[in-house]
Amino acid sequence: MSEGRLIGVGVGPGDPELLTIKAVRVLRAAPVVAFFAKAGRRGNARKIVDPWLTAAQEELPLAYPVTTEIHFADPCYRFALAAFYDESAERIAAHLREGRDVALLSEGDPLFYGSFMHLFMRLKPRFATSIVPGVTGMCGAWGAAGMPMAWGDDVLVVAPGTLPLGELVERLRRADGAAIMKIGRNLAKVREALRACEMFSRAIYVERATMENEIILPLAEKCDDSAPYFSMVLVPGEGRRP
Amino acid sequence: MSEGRLIGVGVGPGDPELLTIKAVRVLRAAPVVAFFAKAGRRGNARKIVDPWLTAAQEELPLAYPVTTEIHFADPCYRFALAAFYDESAERIAAHLREGRDVALLSEGDPLFYGSFMHLFMRLKPRFATSIVPGVTGMCGAWGAAGMPMAWGDDVLVVAPGTLPLGELVERLRRADGAAIMKIGRNLAKVREALRACEMFSRAIYVERATMENEIILPLAEKCDDSAPYFSMVLVPGEGRRP
Repeated sequence: MSEGRLIGVGVGPGDPELLTIKAVRVLRAAPVVAFFAKAGRRGNARKIVDPWLTAAQEELPLAYPVTTEIHFADPCYRFALAAFYDESAERIAAHLREGRDVALLSEGDPLFYGSFMHLFMRLKPRFATSIVPGVTGMCGAWGAAGMPMAWGDDVLVVAPGTLPLGELVERLRRADGAAIMKIGRNLAKVREALRACEMFSRAIYVERATMENEIILPLAEKCDDSAPYFSMVLVPGEGRRP
Repeated sequence: MSEGRLIGVGVGPGDPELLTIKAVRVLRAAPVVAFFAKAGRRGNARKIVDPWLTAAQEELPLAYPVTTEIHFADPCYRFALAAFYDESAERIAAHLREGRDVALLSEGDPLFYGSFMHLFMRLKPRFATSIVPGVTGMCGAWGAAGMPMAWGDDVLVVAPGTLPLGELVERLRRADGAAIMKIGRNLAKVREALRACEMFSRAIYVERATMENEIILPLAEKCDDSAPYFSMVLVPGEGRRP
């Protein structure tokens, strides 16, 4: 009996129609579908693929032990997460050893800030793997906003809002366009960084792009600093336009 | 009679299966399918969607007057391209005015370095528009390479290889990971910039990702400096990994 394959499947930004043809094909053919979720919740990735799964498939939810309760710089956070990834990798390995392919869902694209990568690195030395790339959350966001992001020789900087203020300013200063992810509690800081880089006036705030209750507005018109983790701030490039 | 809608359809990095479910649905429903191509050629975007079109659809090829023969900094290049975009927009407008939706193909994602954006900006003030985001060429490339690109707090810089050496170094210096597009004749310069930023040893060269004849190898192992325009150099981030 040959071993199964781990397949990282990008499920896109939220709209179930934004899975690729290949993702749907691979997903339906997989005997086991694994996904990350908060304990007791179904998880966003699993929700996105709902129209595409069949009752015959085994589901393998991987429930995070912690998410935002502990700061990521805390050694306890790293320790708890490392143990969780180790254990999740073993749960997947058990299926692979018995010859069952496992599709592991990833919001957006699997190799772009995805938890998928932590299991991929653990399992890649031991099993066959493949990747189905996906539409990233940022492409979903600027598409929903109808906002061209990068023209001609523009440089686009993708930065997490979790960086300290000084770092953010430093990184954004040489950008023509920017996508700032992981906004969450960082919105006030992100505003400040964008003001320092003279990017504030053209920044757009996007929440739940391509999903129900999508919110898109100029950042200057957003009156509070409350934002979910998966919101985003986009600053369009303004490069060469014949 | 109501007017038609301009729809920017991202067709992904090359594999026809990497169109989204939505892209295929929208494409098949469009009475007119427009696409950019070099004069006398079919064009890569058109080739990618070949399995999805039907004989009943009207095709509208838009043939570039110039591509790499004139340098983009030459005023003649800008002038010729501007006239071409104006004229192409009018050809599409003629269909829209008569109530026919036009799907305009874009390799990768429509709002990320796509020629689509030039027609979008010209037609958006006059007609209804929408965007179907796509899998970018860079996601296709790092997926094919099986290479995680951005972890934790990594900053990813996307830069065109067409920038002057000094600019490239300046922009890459504060990057954790990098995707350098539009390699073409710029590969020797890109190598030099990566050496200056101590990124050379982990850089990967990718050509025609997800297509037939895909080439992926460490940049250090690529023996010549010849590369097509749509090749790419990727430098993976090395951030936080519990």
